Amino acid sequence: MVNFKIENPTTVHFGKDVMNDLGNTIALYGKKVLLVYGGGSIKKNGIYDKALEQLKSVGAKVVEFHGIKPNPLVDDVNEAAELGRKHDVEVILAIGGGSVIDSAKVISVSIPLQTSAWRIMIGLDKPKKAIPLIAVLTLAATGTEMNMFAVLQNEEANKKIGYGHQMMYPKHSFLDPQNTFSVPRDYTAYGIADLMAHCLENYFGKGEATLSDRFVHSILNEAIEYGPKLLEDLTNYELRAKIMYAATMALNGFTAYGREKGDWGVHAIGHVLSLLYDTPHGATLSIAYIAWLKLHLNRTNERIALLGKAVFGSKNSDETIKHFESFFASTGCPVRLQQAGIESREKGKILSTMIKNKVNGGHHKLSEDDLRELVDLMDQPI
Amino acid sequence: MVNFKIENPTTVHFGKDVMNDLGNTIALYGKKVLLVYGGGSIKKNGIYDKALEQLKSVGAKVVEFHGIKPNPLVDDVNEAAELGRKHDVEVILAIGGGSVIDSAKVISVSIPLQTSAWRIMIGLDKPKKAIPLIAVLTLAATGTEMNMFAVLQNEEANKKIGYGHQMMYPKHSFLDPQNTFSVPRDYTAYGIADLMAHCLENYFGKGEATLSDRFVHSILNEAIEYGPKLLEDLTNYELRAKIMYAATMALNGFTAYGREKGDWGVHAIGHVLSLLYDTPHGATLSIAYIAWLKLHLNRTNERIALLGKAVFGSKNSDETIKHFESFFASTGCPVRLQQAGIESREKGKILSTMIKNKVNGGHHKLSEDDLRELVDLMDQPI
Repeated sequence: MVNFKIENPTTVHFGKDVMNDLGNTIALYGKKVLLVYGGGSIKKNGIYDKALEQLKSVGAKVVEFHGIKPNPLVDDVNEAAELGRKHDVEVILAIGGGSVIDSAKVISVSIPLQTSAWRIMIGLDKPKKAIPLIAVLTLAATGTEMNMFAVLQNEEANKKIGYGHQMMYPKHSFLDPQNTFSVPRDYTAYGIADLMAHCLENYFGKGEATLSDRFVHSILNEAIEYGPKLLEDLTNYELRAKIMYAATMALNGFTAYGREKGDWGVHAIGHVLSLLYDTPHGATLSIAYIAWLKLHLNRTNERIALLGKAVFGSKNSDETIKHFESFFASTGCPVRLQQAGIESREKGKILSTMIKNKVNGGHHKLSEDDLRELVDLMDQPI
Repeated sequence: MVNFKIENPTTVHFGKDVMNDLGNTIALYGKKVLLVYGGGSIKKNGIYDKALEQLKSVGAKVVEFHGIKPNPLVDDVNEAAELGRKHDVEVILAIGGGSVIDSAKVISVSIPLQTSAWRIMIGLDKPKKAIPLIAVLTLAATGTEMNMFAVLQNEEANKKIGYGHQMMYPKHSFLDPQNTFSVPRDYTAYGIADLMAHCLENYFGKGEATLSDRFVHSILNEAIEYGPKLLEDLTNYELRAKIMYAATMALNGFTAYGREKGDWGVHAIGHVLSLLYDTPHGATLSIAYIAWLKLHLNRTNERIALLGKAVFGSKNSDETIKHFESFFASTGCPVRLQQAGIESREKGKILSTMIKNKVNGGHHKLSEDDLRELVDLMDQPI
């Protein structure tokens, strides 16, 4: 077990109607609010109205930035930060899933720095302070609500990368499972694949951390037991709550503490698919993880087998991979490129982008030959 | 799943030589330091010297209060608080196990309130602010290092009770597994029983919280797998680290979130034994839990069986209890009163104190008949 620090300052408000405390919580930080959201689904499902009511109740002045894309773009972040600067905002309220909250995290540190978001993402400018960020989560998936990480896409640079800084934790995150009732079946499944992938990236990282491994098993078991039930009953509060909490716990530190590092090779692969084909993040991971596991079948055999034993009761690593594949497939997540509408002739382009963007794992290193094999495995017949 | 809030402000510094950051961390809060510790074992094992060196390196002025008892007394807390007031301390540094850190938590809120600690413990005076508390943990057991709870004993009132307040979280806790190397075998085992009991108190609480249940399984499995190995190899860093981290995770919220409440009936029973016979806390719990499980064998049968299946692979609730009993016994923890040197003729006194102190569970209610049966079960031949 390596040394680690637990320092997670986010207050999570979890449960039914927790948004009733949103106004008073925002008022702790100021009255000039930058409201950030996505394509407008929050106007259809009533969350926008609830938030505005809360903001009004404390006399907040609101400027809005909307239109954050599901694969969030750095240009939007820059535009939103400029708006925030112009209005001298004191608080940011982000309502949405991972893309919106990730964007808001980078907005929160780029407003005071007066710099472009991409310079922060690539480490050229270091955050010095942050506008306090309050998040209302509408999608159980990325875990962004209780961590310091953000992923953004830069179309100009043709890159999608992650960045994290201690100042980027939301001050408060409001998690009402009811706010995920209107997430359609497919995106609900992508969220489940995403939270499971976060467990796996940590599990296949470097260094022994037995209790963190057990938490990985716990969260995977929760997703595998209740995920399929939720997909048959999308407005079931208890099931939405279980998956929402599992997603938060998958990436708030407790699957990682004591390890030297996570792997994150599969996320790097997934980001290339999102970049090239705008494939939803979770759907890239179900494809890429199956290929990655097959590539590593004889490299990290025992660890794959132990995982499968704990999670599926499977007898060996081969069986473990089959379980993961059939689980993802049963939830409607793609496990091959063609299921995400990506044809075989794209293979060369995927590989060259992977190589150009230096796709690799933090622990399990991927050579060019490995990347080629991974692309072939993602394109295998089912 | 009921609504809950995750709001844990403690920064945990976990690992080898983390005390190297102690001085700078203390200096963030001030230079006038109240140092609180127990019977002086920290002078023998070098931890005291390390701490003083750190304090000196940042020019801190230190006043000391020592002599906190293993079952901590409210009178000591009052005396330490008076000392802190007199010297106008800005920071409290607590070095020790649960008793020292619990005492320091109450000292931290009673200094500014200028009231007796017992009035805070029984809810008559509410904390308004707290002197920042930094903890250096020397015993893996109670989990106090990352929660807001404290247990104190009042000899005059003949009571041992718990109290918690959001202001009572340590600001920082330093957890170096090396600092537990000199804990003897018996107290190491009591610590393991204590952390397991925290899992069980939460597990047998009220309300369904499936992921928190899985975390309970995880932590119990960790203790059951590595606890006995540690008892054979007391200066093994990895094993000390595993048990130390498990103890922290057993009572920092993550075995509880989503439940209506924990039970805590067994702790209430254990406190009576500590009060009457000064029995070490963990040793009271191994005795009381076996009796409690037997009493509840036919009352919460399925839940006991499910736990045993997940933790021991046992087939039914009866077998589960036998597993717990033989596990505790194998670690050298008492599972009957006589093993803790408490004779059968004490039964009446134990029962009357239980009744007088209104011993009960938060979820599983205990009648006078139940308490009588529990005392008999604790006194059963082995």
